[in-house]
Amino acid sequence: MKKFAAGVDIGGTNTVIGIVDRDGNVVYEHSIPTQTHEKIEDFVAELCGEIKNGIQTLEGDFELVGIGIGAPNANFYTGTIESAANLRWKGKIEFSKLVKNHFSVPVYLTNDANAAAIGEMIYGGAKKMKNFIVITLGTGLGSGIVVNGKLLYGQDGFAGEMGHVIVEPNGRVCGCGRHGCLEAYVSATGLVRTVSELMAYYNQPSGLREIPFNKLTSKGIAMAAASGDFIAVEAIKKTGKRLGESLADIVAITSPEAIFLFGGLANAGKILTDEVQHHMDKNMLYIFKSKTQLKLSQMNNNAAIMGASALVWNEIE
Amino acid sequence: MKKFAAGVDIGGTNTVIGIVDRDGNVVYEHSIPTQTHEKIEDFVAELCGEIKNGIQTLEGDFELVGIGIGAPNANFYTGTIESAANLRWKGKIEFSKLVKNHFSVPVYLTNDANAAAIGEMIYGGAKKMKNFIVITLGTGLGSGIVVNGKLLYGQDGFAGEMGHVIVEPNGRVCGCGRHGCLEAYVSATGLVRTVSELMAYYNQPSGLREIPFNKLTSKGIAMAAASGDFIAVEAIKKTGKRLGESLADIVAITSPEAIFLFGGLANAGKILTDEVQHHMDKNMLYIFKSKTQLKLSQMNNNAAIMGASALVWNEIE
Repeated sequence: MKKFAAGVDIGGTNTVIGIVDRDGNVVYEHSIPTQTHEKIEDFVAELCGEIKNGIQTLEGDFELVGIGIGAPNANFYTGTIESAANLRWKGKIEFSKLVKNHFSVPVYLTNDANAAAIGEMIYGGAKKMKNFIVITLGTGLGSGIVVNGKLLYGQDGFAGEMGHVIVEPNGRVCGCGRHGCLEAYVSATGLVRTVSELMAYYNQPSGLREIPFNKLTSKGIAMAAASGDFIAVEAIKKTGKRLGESLADIVAITSPEAIFLFGGLANAGKILTDEVQHHMDKNMLYIFKSKTQLKLSQMNNNAAIMGASALVWNEIE
Repeated sequence: MKKFAAGVDIGGTNTVIGIVDRDGNVVYEHSIPTQTHEKIEDFVAELCGEIKNGIQTLEGDFELVGIGIGAPNANFYTGTIESAANLRWKGKIEFSKLVKNHFSVPVYLTNDANAAAIGEMIYGGAKKMKNFIVITLGTGLGSGIVVNGKLLYGQDGFAGEMGHVIVEPNGRVCGCGRHGCLEAYVSATGLVRTVSELMAYYNQPSGLREIPFNKLTSKGIAMAAASGDFIAVEAIKKTGKRLGESLADIVAITSPEAIFLFGGLANAGKILTDEVQHHMDKNMLYIFKSKTQLKLSQMNNNAAIMGASALVWNEIE
């Protein structure tokens, strides 16, 4: 009997539902808008209906072994989503419990970065690794830290908030309300802020000066850098330097075999990764020199639902 | 049959040998100088002879269940001591193997800060805790990080070097050769350096201005602060601020139940601990507010050999 896991990725705009086998083949995929329902119960009902639709497309003898869900501010221990800034349902939502009302299989919930780490371990570049970190570079900076083969959840399920290590006292205002967090510098939005800062500092001409702040994207900046735009190149280099420095620090604390970069900004190209590697090496404590590999994630298409489904295999195996 | 573990603490000057029962009672204790033997084998022979002397003082039916050793730059995985700056034997020393030549019981080796963490878990304030950190504030700053009830060793056995997170880019020269490491600010020597810096910055009179740099101690500075010396108070406050800020960062990464401060500087009194607590709270990411307790270690006398012996109970249980 062939086994499948459902993987669900809840984003601020869309929620993607997938059915995935143990080898990482996505045999069904469907997307629904996240925020159309006022009541969370109605959203969960639609979501679970879509999982059931997915199951009905399967042929032959099969078993659904569990449902894995990645969501912002999700807590693995409690199965809850707490005060997620990008979702309309406020307070503490008993998300796993609501899903379990529709299914008799185990339901696992964790945040996006932790799901990415488990995905890397089950399907990607971290197979057989016991100690590694996945850094997700999207709108913010997330981290999933695996220690002794298990996610580092801490006492409350919220550990791994590397994006909120303060790298610049009294620095940029962060979405969390404090100043100088790593993700205010190293993330898609951080890169845009750095471009804005450098346009103020330098006099060099740049195509980016024609684009309003709110239209600047990490992809656009990466393209400008690839064609030699000075401001774009400098901004990506500054971003890579910050990240490399912070990676040297996290190595001193956790000594991982590898660090994987994942997400849109991770694909900004060689200008970024060369700079990250250079400053990570330069700032590394001597006992850790050349021990930790810096890699790009091997999860590509469907990474979010694959990561969520990987939670299931990781728990049942 | 009563069970005992041997605990050995190897310091730059003295090595202390103890026999400890499961409840943390030290029934035998003896100290030998660390650096009198040119050959490591001769040192180990003397050390093992002293353990055997200790065993001979035990009465009734007993069993020695293992030997735990805390040493600088020690590696739990390999049982080796690697390039310890304060020991005369250079390169990679197969320390556990050498000790095993003299005994038929298991031998466990780890660094001082990790031994302190295991001691806290077995005998001290962290009993029943699964996620906590012990910060050792001595000549340097060490950390033992416990995750899911196990020490965080990383891929190579060297994880937990929180003292070498860079808190001040281009800051003070650290013993590791880099600039701006936490331990260059937060440690007994870091405090002395801060006093020296503040004597240069301020004009206020201070009894500390009568003492040469090399004679300044964290204990002397704490005493001066207790009697209201302005420079001493400011230096301790600066030290506490740095530590509090770094503790907020490590909480974002590991989310521990508690952080224990251990070692001479930890006893600098309320001026220090109030400041650490204040800046830890002030810099804490909102989801972690008021969750992690800041505590003084409950390990006092014989803490080093108790920590080393605790390694044994932790492994065999």
